[in-house]
Amino acid sequence: MQDTTAIPTDWLDEIKWDDQGLVPAIAQDAASGDILMMAWMNREALALTVAENRAIYWSRSRGKLWRKGESSGHVQLVSEIRLDCDADVIVLKVDQLGDIACHTGRRSCFYRRLENGDWVSVEPVLKEPDAIYGKQGDPSA
Amino acid sequence: MQDTTAIPTDWLDEIKWDDQGLVPAIAQDAASGDILMMAWMNREALALTVAENRAIYWSRSRGKLWRKGESSGHVQLVSEIRLDCDADVIVLKVDQLGDIACHTGRRSCFYRRLENGDWVSVEPVLKEPDAIYGKQGDPSA
Repeated sequence: MQDTTAIPTDWLDEIKWDDQGLVPAIAQDAASGDILMMAWMNREALALTVAENRAIYWSRSRGKLWRKGESSGHVQLVSEIRLDCDADVIVLKVDQLGDIACHTGRRSCFYRRLENGDWVSVEPVLKEPDAIYGKQGDPSA
Repeated sequence: MQDTTAIPTDWLDEIKWDDQGLVPAIAQDAASGDILMMAWMNREALALTVAENRAIYWSRSRGKLWRKGESSGHVQLVSEIRLDCDADVIVLKVDQLGDIACHTGRRSCFYRRLENGDWVSVEPVLKEPDAIYGKQGDPSA
């Protein structure tokens, strides 16, 4: 009798995890195509992302799983996952709740554009971080 | 008298290079918003990318600069460069010559989609690698 609790994980084995067991994961807005952020995933983070249909990263600075949106409410619902030709980079197509991915309160983390030798902020703050996280909050979540 | 040959590089100093002196660089099609590939850049690669307005990466496998398109002709003309909030990831908005970014002859390197626990190729090969690089060619260029 088949063990129906067994979850196939061959697809996880196909990924070329780096020497720290991580891969870069790029979150792209599924509707607009805008690139929202890039973070890192380990095997557990990616497995949970698929199981829960929401982006769960590995925080390298905090050394633990990072359920994107757990403090801010800015959860990323995942509609599609892509893998590149070298099997070492992931793209997540997401629906960004609150329309804010960045801890600075901007839509995208890529809000600085190179202009004549300077990085210039070109996207507005939609919500102040204090209002998102509270004054004691953790702006990385 | 000002030395007009001096090139300001403060913008390069603002980037948080990793312990190997690299940052991930995501190439995005400027017109469609599709993510084409992710590769790595060192300081010289990014400076040359800006100077020449075309994507020049650092090949970690070959340990040298990689002028994207040098063998294939699939040069990436750079129209915009973005930096993220942590200053450790770059986005390049590019015009992909030949409309093929991937060494497999596909438009994007992210041609595999996770479907029911399998990575499934969902984008067509537009040109066979042999026809791009020749039978003796280097399919990573």
